Amino acid sequence: MRYLTGFTGEDSFLLVGRDLTVLVSDSRFETQIAEECPGLDAHIRPRTKTISEAVGEAVASAKLRKLAFESVTTSYSQWQALSQTLKPLELVPQPDLVETLRLIKDDEELAEIRQAIQQAERGFQLLKATLEPQMTELQAANELERAMRHFGAKQAAFDTIIAVGPRAALPHARPTSAKIGDAGFVLVDWGARNSAGYHSDLTRMIVTGTISPKLEKLYRVVLQAHQRGVEAVRPGVTGGEVDSVAREVIRQAGWGKNFGHGLGHGIGLEIHEGPRVTQNSKVELKPGMVVTIEPGIYLPGWGGIRIEDDVLVTRTGHEVLTSLPRDLESAA
Amino acid sequence: MRYLTGFTGEDSFLLVGRDLTVLVSDSRFETQIAEECPGLDAHIRPRTKTISEAVGEAVASAKLRKLAFESVTTSYSQWQALSQTLKPLELVPQPDLVETLRLIKDDEELAEIRQAIQQAERGFQLLKATLEPQMTELQAANELERAMRHFGAKQAAFDTIIAVGPRAALPHARPTSAKIGDAGFVLVDWGARNSAGYHSDLTRMIVTGTISPKLEKLYRVVLQAHQRGVEAVRPGVTGGEVDSVAREVIRQAGWGKNFGHGLGHGIGLEIHEGPRVTQNSKVELKPGMVVTIEPGIYLPGWGGIRIEDDVLVTRTGHEVLTSLPRDLESAA
Repeated sequence: MRYLTGFTGEDSFLLVGRDLTVLVSDSRFETQIAEECPGLDAHIRPRTKTISEAVGEAVASAKLRKLAFESVTTSYSQWQALSQTLKPLELVPQPDLVETLRLIKDDEELAEIRQAIQQAERGFQLLKATLEPQMTELQAANELERAMRHFGAKQAAFDTIIAVGPRAALPHARPTSAKIGDAGFVLVDWGARNSAGYHSDLTRMIVTGTISPKLEKLYRVVLQAHQRGVEAVRPGVTGGEVDSVAREVIRQAGWGKNFGHGLGHGIGLEIHEGPRVTQNSKVELKPGMVVTIEPGIYLPGWGGIRIEDDVLVTRTGHEVLTSLPRDLESAA
Repeated sequence: MRYLTGFTGEDSFLLVGRDLTVLVSDSRFETQIAEECPGLDAHIRPRTKTISEAVGEAVASAKLRKLAFESVTTSYSQWQALSQTLKPLELVPQPDLVETLRLIKDDEELAEIRQAIQQAERGFQLLKATLEPQMTELQAANELERAMRHFGAKQAAFDTIIAVGPRAALPHARPTSAKIGDAGFVLVDWGARNSAGYHSDLTRMIVTGTISPKLEKLYRVVLQAHQRGVEAVRPGVTGGEVDSVAREVIRQAGWGKNFGHGLGHGIGLEIHEGPRVTQNSKVELKPGMVVTIEPGIYLPGWGGIRIEDDVLVTRTGHEVLTSLPRDLESAA
């Protein structure tokens, strides 16, 4: 809905056809629709009608025989109600029609993603400048979110992961009251959501102690996997092929079993969207797609290393949109 | 899912039957399930199977003929996939089964809601202590969220509304770069989500200038509507009856048309849940329900007044769970 119209409200249906484009909504959103989608026809349901009945009214004048609906986002109950009120119209389930359009970002969308990246990177730099060993993971996550908002972000793109030492072995660790200085290193996986709803997604390690030989060794493997993965991004390769290139580096170093997730995913209006950059992904990369590249090695009890950047597929190859340094020296 | 098991992950199905309770999930969540729901059977799907196929495996051993599913939260596409993999099992749509259980909060849940209220109230007091006329709505919203997190909140319960003067005429205003001191008053509608996922929801006015006769007049009407609404909360009345009591105060004062939303809603694991406290609501209030009472008057161009508290239905009447003062003098 937001992608097609700019509307950010809830409980509404958008009808799109050759002779019909109308947003069916309720009075709570009347002003918002006028602000967010000037020129779009709105059918505001009276309080006495359900939203399904209002869709029926909006459809009636168009004399349709068939109506496709987004079957991934429409609940079974909504479908039941629509089937009832739209009879005898035939309802045709249609998955991922808009999701497929969204795979390729246009220039305006790329500008939004670049802005979300800048908000995330400036926030991280501010966090790093103020980080203290006695801060907890939770406090650091709070400060990072505040800093991103200070730089214009609407909010964090997702629950920020700040994981000290052994906690970094969980790919989806939640911040706790563990202290930043409690182990020699911290994993930070964060992103910003900008005011237009676009996301960034990064991961960096921060070294708070001395660099142990083990940390250095693992870091260099992950960094190499990351570089190879990024280099593999170009039009025509599949998500699965990019995943394999990076995964092979980690496998050859002997840590294959310790990289248990996919290499990356698309970002945009959602923090996880297509194309998938995972072992089985057959999606072919095309110019305008934006994906994360985020290899990792996780050792239960010891911790984990992950390095993540956001990469645009260009006509000739790729452009790394993120710019924070990723060498081990900069992590210290 | 979270209500029944404590599990907070995604992309999973919970099967509950007389001889069967099992969470069907994937390897990303294996550790998390063990942590969040110790003792619960988990069926972890292999990467080669879809989640629907895994549900089929989990169901097979139970020899069922019928399986009910939550039709409000299951998408049409999920239902299609399940119908296919579970054949010839009969799938029966079942709306709001768990939602109905959730209407009545037990003591543990009430403790969580009280905590979320305390986090919100302490956050607000900190914001008020540091608020400056030159801060923007956005900065103030950021500071309030940070303060709530400082007091232990997981995050804001919803996008905080901080609306200066005329912007308060929009019941769902988004924070802008308007300055706090730009008009004589600010509407703040905010809440906290605690770490267990329970929400609080409050609204207070902050007077930054002199109290105009108009502001005072409107405030007193809304405050009286609020008091009457709260007093009407007791077991046996319907949501609609409570709404009418408060609405009548505003109507008699001549502002009936300027109170365009319902009086309140339930809060819990969701920020909006049952019971609805709106004109047409036939739900009977029962001990253990927690609802907001939030009358308002909105004058386009001038601004709006709203006062909102969280109220528990008790055996003998009600208990107001929120404790921030709500008289006009305290707003100044």
